[in-house]
Amino acid sequence: MLTIKSRSHDYNVENYTDLGDALGSISHRGKVLYLVDEVLLKIQPETFAPIIDGGLMISIQATEEQKSLERLAPLFLQLLDRGIKRNDLLVVIGGGVLQDIGCFISSVLFRGIQWELIPTTLLAQADSCIGSKSSINIGSYKNQIGTFYPPHRVLLVPDILSSLPWDEIRSGLGEVIKLQLLKGKDDFEELMGDLHAISPHGGSDMIAKWVMRSMLVKKPYIESDEHDMGIRNLLNYGHTFGHAYESATHYAIPHGIAVTLGMLTSTFLSMRLGLVEAAHYQDLKERLFEWHIPYGEMLRSADRQIILRAIRHDKKNTGDSINCILTRGCGRMEKIAVDFN
Amino acid sequence: MLTIKSRSHDYNVENYTDLGDALGSISHRGKVLYLVDEVLLKIQPETFAPIIDGGLMISIQATEEQKSLERLAPLFLQLLDRGIKRNDLLVVIGGGVLQDIGCFISSVLFRGIQWELIPTTLLAQADSCIGSKSSINIGSYKNQIGTFYPPHRVLLVPDILSSLPWDEIRSGLGEVIKLQLLKGKDDFEELMGDLHAISPHGGSDMIAKWVMRSMLVKKPYIESDEHDMGIRNLLNYGHTFGHAYESATHYAIPHGIAVTLGMLTSTFLSMRLGLVEAAHYQDLKERLFEWHIPYGEMLRSADRQIILRAIRHDKKNTGDSINCILTRGCGRMEKIAVDFN
Repeated sequence: MLTIKSRSHDYNVENYTDLGDALGSISHRGKVLYLVDEVLLKIQPETFAPIIDGGLMISIQATEEQKSLERLAPLFLQLLDRGIKRNDLLVVIGGGVLQDIGCFISSVLFRGIQWELIPTTLLAQADSCIGSKSSINIGSYKNQIGTFYPPHRVLLVPDILSSLPWDEIRSGLGEVIKLQLLKGKDDFEELMGDLHAISPHGGSDMIAKWVMRSMLVKKPYIESDEHDMGIRNLLNYGHTFGHAYESATHYAIPHGIAVTLGMLTSTFLSMRLGLVEAAHYQDLKERLFEWHIPYGEMLRSADRQIILRAIRHDKKNTGDSINCILTRGCGRMEKIAVDFN
Repeated sequence: MLTIKSRSHDYNVENYTDLGDALGSISHRGKVLYLVDEVLLKIQPETFAPIIDGGLMISIQATEEQKSLERLAPLFLQLLDRGIKRNDLLVVIGGGVLQDIGCFISSVLFRGIQWELIPTTLLAQADSCIGSKSSINIGSYKNQIGTFYPPHRVLLVPDILSSLPWDEIRSGLGEVIKLQLLKGKDDFEELMGDLHAISPHGGSDMIAKWVMRSMLVKKPYIESDEHDMGIRNLLNYGHTFGHAYESATHYAIPHGIAVTLGMLTSTFLSMRLGLVEAAHYQDLKERLFEWHIPYGEMLRSADRQIILRAIRHDKKNTGDSINCILTRGCGRMEKIAVDFN
C-alpha cells in the first residue's frame, strides 16, 4: 500500500488480486454508483452482473469525444436522476478517459463527492491514477478544462492488464520509460534490462513491478507541487511534442507512444541546443525504437504545419515562446522557453 | 480592507469610490478579460467604453437559465477563441449569477485561472462575494454543480448600489438580517434600528456600513469551515425553505426575500418543536413584515405539494430526513434533522 498526500485529501493505493476482490472491498455508508468503461462489461460480464442488477451503474464509451464538456451534461443528469446525493460514492472503473470524466464529475457534483478509482490500463495504473488531474475537452480544444481532485482510494488490480492488447501495453510503457528517465541512469538501465521480459505474451509480474516503481518516481513530484506550478512541470517531458503528434494524427498514435516520440524530439532539440551529447540522443533513439514502431513512420507523413501549430497551442504555454522540458541527460530535465517562430 | 483566508488562496476585499476607480486598479502581467452583466453596460456605457474597444469583454444576461452547465460551453469557447491563457486574468462584474458563472469558469479553465470580482448587487456585496462558492444548474436541477474557488481580489464599490431597484435592495437586506440574527440579539437590534434610515430614496451610507458588518459575521464561518462540512451550515438558516419558495414560484420571489420568509418558517418550526418561545417568532414576524411584502402573499397561493417536494430535494439533504437550521433565539442556531414524511 502507498499513501499519497494531497492538498484536497490524502489517499491510499491498494493492491487487489482480481476485479471481484477489488469490488468486494468497497464499503460506504451512502449509496454506491458506478461509472464503467463499456468494454469491460463485455470482457467480464459475470463480475459486473451484481452491479448491473442494482441499477446504479452507468456504462460509457471511452472515447475522446465522450470526455467533452458538451457530452458530460447527460452523465450528470443520469446520476442525478438515479438520486445521487452528496454523501454517496462514485466508483470509476476504466482507463484515462473514464478517469478524466469520473474525476471531473466527482469534483464539481455538489461541489465534490467521494470517488474511488479502479484503473484498468497500464497508462492509468502506472501514471495517471495518482496526481489528481482531470482533463476535459471543449469544442475543438483538447484538455483545456479540468480540476485537481484525487480519488479517495485507488484500487490496483495488476491482473486486469493481462487482457489488454499489446499496443496498449506499449503505450503505457511510454510513460513508465519517461518516469525512469526522469529518475536517473541506474533506474533507466534496470528498466531497459527488464523490458526484454515483457512481450505480447507475458511479463505481467515485471509490469506490476514497474507500475509500483513508476508511482514511486511520480509521488514526490505530485506531493510537493500538486497544482503543477513548478517541479511537477518536469513530468511533462515529451508531452509538448507528444500532444502535438497525437493532435496532428487525430489521435491515431496511442498517448504513451506519442510521449516516447515526443521525448526523442525533445532530446534531439536538447542536442541541437548543446544541452546534451549527440551520443545520448543516438542511444535513446536506438533503444526506444521498438517502443514506437510503426507510429514513427506515421508521423513522417503528418503535416509539419499542423504539428507546429499544435505545439504553439499547448496549454502549458503562457506567452510567445514555448515552454519545453529539455534534457541534459538521464535524471537532468529542465524547463526551458524555446522560440519556434 | 479585509483579508479572507481560504484553502485555495487568501484574498482581499478592497473599497473603491466608483466603478472607474475600481477598473483602474486592475493590473496584471497577462491579458485581462472581462465578463460583464449586460445591464451594467447600458447604465454606465462610458465606463465600459475602453474595455469594449479592447475586444476582451463578454457581456451576458444575468438569468437563471444562463448559469446552467449547458449554457456555459459557448462561454468557455468565446474565452478560448479570444486566446485566453492560463496566466491571464478574468474580471467578473455583476451580481450572483455572474459570480457563479465567473467563479465556475475560473476554477476549471486550465484547472484554475486568476479572477477578480466586482459585485454589483447588495446580495453579492454583503454576502456571496466572500465564501468561495459557485453554483451551476443542470437540466431542471438547481445549483447542483459547483466549486469552491474564491476570487483573487474583491473590489467593493458601494456607490454602484445607488442605482439598484428597491426590490433588489430589500432582497439583499434579507441576507444582511440573517447574518445579524446569527450574530446575536445586540447586533440584530442595532440593525433593526438602522433599517429605518434605508428607503427606496436613500440610506446608502447605512447600507455600506451593514455590507461590512455582514462580511465580518460571515468571515469566521467561511474561514474555519470553507467547504461547508460543519459550522458553516448555520449560514443556511432560512435557506432550505427559502430555496423551496423560490423554486415553487419559479424564481418570482427574489432570493433574499425568500430567505427572509424561510427564516420565518424555520422559526415557526422551531417554536412548534419547542425550541423557542412563541414570543420570539411573533416578534420576528412583525418586525420582518415590511421586508417581505407582497411576496408572502404570493407564497400563500403556491402549491404546497411543490414546496414540500422542493424541500425534500434540497441538496443539503443526505438521507430521508431533512437537515434544517432551526433556532433557539438570536445567535443560537442549530442544525437539526426533521422528518417531513
